[in-house]
Amino acid sequence: MAKKLTLRSEDYSKWYNEIVVDADLAQHSDVKGCMIIKPYGYAIWERMKDALDTMFKETGHSNAYFPLFIPKSYLSKEAAHVKGFAKECAVVTHYRLINNPDGDGLVVDPDAKLEEELIVRPTSETIIWNTYRKWIQSYRDLPLLINQWANVVRWEMRTRLFLRTTEFLWQEGHTAHATKLEAEEETRRMLEVYATFAESWMAMPVVKGNKTESERFAGALDTLCIEAMMQDGKALQAGTSHFLGQNFARAFDVKFATKEGKQELVWATSWGVSTRLMGALVMTHSDDAGLVLPPKLAPIEVVIVPIYKGPEQMGEILEKCREIESDLRSSGIRVKLDDDDAKRSGWKFAEYELKGVPLRIAVGPRDLEKGTCELARRDTRSKSFEPLEGITTTVKSLLETIQSDLFTTAKSRLTDNTVEADNWDDFVSEVNNGKFVMAHWDGTSETEDRISQQTKASIRCIPYEGDTTPGICIKTGNPSPRRVLFAKAY
Amino acid sequence: MAKKLTLRSEDYSKWYNEIVVDADLAQHSDVKGCMIIKPYGYAIWERMKDALDTMFKETGHSNAYFPLFIPKSYLSKEAAHVKGFAKECAVVTHYRLINNPDGDGLVVDPDAKLEEELIVRPTSETIIWNTYRKWIQSYRDLPLLINQWANVVRWEMRTRLFLRTTEFLWQEGHTAHATKLEAEEETRRMLEVYATFAESWMAMPVVKGNKTESERFAGALDTLCIEAMMQDGKALQAGTSHFLGQNFARAFDVKFATKEGKQELVWATSWGVSTRLMGALVMTHSDDAGLVLPPKLAPIEVVIVPIYKGPEQMGEILEKCREIESDLRSSGIRVKLDDDDAKRSGWKFAEYELKGVPLRIAVGPRDLEKGTCELARRDTRSKSFEPLEGITTTVKSLLETIQSDLFTTAKSRLTDNTVEADNWDDFVSEVNNGKFVMAHWDGTSETEDRISQQTKASIRCIPYEGDTTPGICIKTGNPSPRRVLFAKAY
Repeated sequence: MAKKLTLRSEDYSKWYNEIVVDADLAQHSDVKGCMIIKPYGYAIWERMKDALDTMFKETGHSNAYFPLFIPKSYLSKEAAHVKGFAKECAVVTHYRLINNPDGDGLVVDPDAKLEEELIVRPTSETIIWNTYRKWIQSYRDLPLLINQWANVVRWEMRTRLFLRTTEFLWQEGHTAHATKLEAEEETRRMLEVYATFAESWMAMPVVKGNKTESERFAGALDTLCIEAMMQDGKALQAGTSHFLGQNFARAFDVKFATKEGKQELVWATSWGVSTRLMGALVMTHSDDAGLVLPPKLAPIEVVIVPIYKGPEQMGEILEKCREIESDLRSSGIRVKLDDDDAKRSGWKFAEYELKGVPLRIAVGPRDLEKGTCELARRDTRSKSFEPLEGITTTVKSLLETIQSDLFTTAKSRLTDNTVEADNWDDFVSEVNNGKFVMAHWDGTSETEDRISQQTKASIRCIPYEGDTTPGICIKTGNPSPRRVLFAKAY
Repeated sequence: MAKKLTLRSEDYSKWYNEIVVDADLAQHSDVKGCMIIKPYGYAIWERMKDALDTMFKETGHSNAYFPLFIPKSYLSKEAAHVKGFAKECAVVTHYRLINNPDGDGLVVDPDAKLEEELIVRPTSETIIWNTYRKWIQSYRDLPLLINQWANVVRWEMRTRLFLRTTEFLWQEGHTAHATKLEAEEETRRMLEVYATFAESWMAMPVVKGNKTESERFAGALDTLCIEAMMQDGKALQAGTSHFLGQNFARAFDVKFATKEGKQELVWATSWGVSTRLMGALVMTHSDDAGLVLPPKLAPIEVVIVPIYKGPEQMGEILEKCREIESDLRSSGIRVKLDDDDAKRSGWKFAEYELKGVPLRIAVGPRDLEKGTCELARRDTRSKSFEPLEGITTTVKSLLETIQSDLFTTAKSRLTDNTVEADNWDDFVSEVNNGKFVMAHWDGTSETEDRISQQTKASIRCIPYEGDTTPGICIKTGNPSPRRVLFAKAY
């Protein structure tokens, strides 16, 4: 039997770490800050990747692959970008090891020093825009709609599995456009793709909005984001889409000939989501018994557990279970029959609960007599007996119900825990209660910083939706054009 | 119109480079030895990846992800492995850049030196076996069948697009087994998967066999390989599967409790194919007009080109083309209608030939009258007129024919150019004629080296199939147990 998890109410952070490790999603490696994504965790990431990749292709994007290494000098080319990305990163300085002349093991060959250091990509704008200069000559080459699935490295001092790791997996879209309007439309289009993915696949409701200037991506004129509420009330930035203006085109001299024959700088966007989404998924739905997965992302949607005593019952029950398995599989349902005779059914129940399998079917001798089986939902942990006749239809419909119920539950939590605050004391108290707080802010970075330093709450975004009536700033009393969303965040 | 390629007969190597660049597969980046895989090339790689991934999963493997970085000391742990892999590699020594205190740009922060250098993985046996120690306790944890899709880095001085690059993409399978027999079976099973993929998907016939001791993977007890013949008669190693014995288990102390409760070392395999397969694909089928792709791997299987003069013809012809497009697409065929009015049909013909699209459909005014269209095969460059009625069936069957004809042609080339040589002069002459030469060898590394130094031909493998009669070594006259396969190689 799996060991009991720490309760969320006792220590949310510890609960999270335990669930990631115990449900076989990921673990720390011996390389500081780098994680190992285990097969079960990777299978969920693969489903995310496939769904997103399909959506990217449906919106006209192609995948490509650019080098892992970026020459150091590239990072300095875009003034704002260098501030944000050129600091904590892995630096390759040498290209050879030799046997230690003074003893055991290997040492770096001092003669194999690179003329210019290479940086392991923290993000790829610079190397990609350096390439786009050769790819883009005329308006006929635009728009250029490219995405890359890759690993990136940002040296992190404090890491948490999936949420903040030195190496992580992600996708980064990098597009080039002939006009500002087109690039802005692309920025919004991809934010919508992310929002749709979060809500339809992850069953995770999100708030869409713009980042404030101080929270923007280094080099962007505007950063759009989706923010999700975790069960502890903290916000998690789940995806960003950046309007880069002509900054990278200017830095890397990427111009195109317009229809009229003029030379103009190209307009850019970039957008990305990462394995951080795995952390968001865990913290949106899971409970004290373990992982809870939305059916659309579950590597196993249904597990079938045979219940029997002794070998005489086993044959008949297993035969029925295999029949159900085969029916479900041929309907496209991802199903597993656990016929391991060495494990007790109680152990199996706990194991698949821990792993978040959305639906469990148990078939015992009484079921066989009556032509029924027991269906147990992972999300609500409710059970019901259902006729075996037509079980595939029942299962299909129940999986859809689970997917939509998970979203509804998470959406209610978001709605119920989003409040307005109109003065400083209320604001502080609501923020400390783990709420998403809609409050007035005077629009200055200085006030934003002061609020954040005093409360640990930051402006998550200026939401697309919600109250846009002017008011007065909760901190300074200065005029505010509209409420913005504050919360503590991961 | 695309510029003419260098002819294969003039300069095979130059032809190869031109085709890779002109057909938009890949290009060099500014980072020495690292390539950029362009969208069209990446789309082919994605199809390869999907097909292989499906085959891996069908044989019981799961994907996972391990860190990009390997602590330097890990590389020294397996004695043979260190010789082969710990030399030419990218070494991370620092984790921070700072603004240059003496001027512009960024410099490495001398205070941010790593205690132990990290190596960008050249292959992942060491970090994976270090992890398996924690994953494997008992025979119940075995077999462990894991694959990873990843980028790897081996510092290369002379690089060629796809064939030899500093960074490349690949998959690496790493499996752990309770018995020697099981591990050996796995090694052979995965070689069969590679051979099936090469022949059924790439239409590239391969010779399966064992590597000689000196050509084995560093740390392996046995290396199995598939070798393919390129059009210039040179061999290309297209995939390898290694039986690692207990070497890595010993180096990383990975033991398991047997059913009887004894502690034993685990048995290992590893196997991989890489973006090198893209080079093999190009050099197996392409011709002086450009790329030739087997339909199963072609991102576009069929291109439809409308032929018309003036806008009055255009409407009717485009309508018919769209009808064909929609019929083909709904039958699952990857089809593109090129209705770009700004480009001449002659330009389009040359462009899709260069890009290796297997089948072209042209529809002109005469076709419309007669209810026909022109079908042009890329592989044979033959054309025929076919009735539009039932065109989907015609196209489907023709694509299958092309796939199988490409294999047959390549297979004939392999058979026709594989010869036996029974004395040194014949051997040298056949090897220089670009043949695969089956010859006797006395089994020593010394002779193998001498032959290779004098002729540039190496032992590609000891083939599974073919003549196993004993004879005398072509170099030394010493006894030889059987013929082995010699060739010059990429």
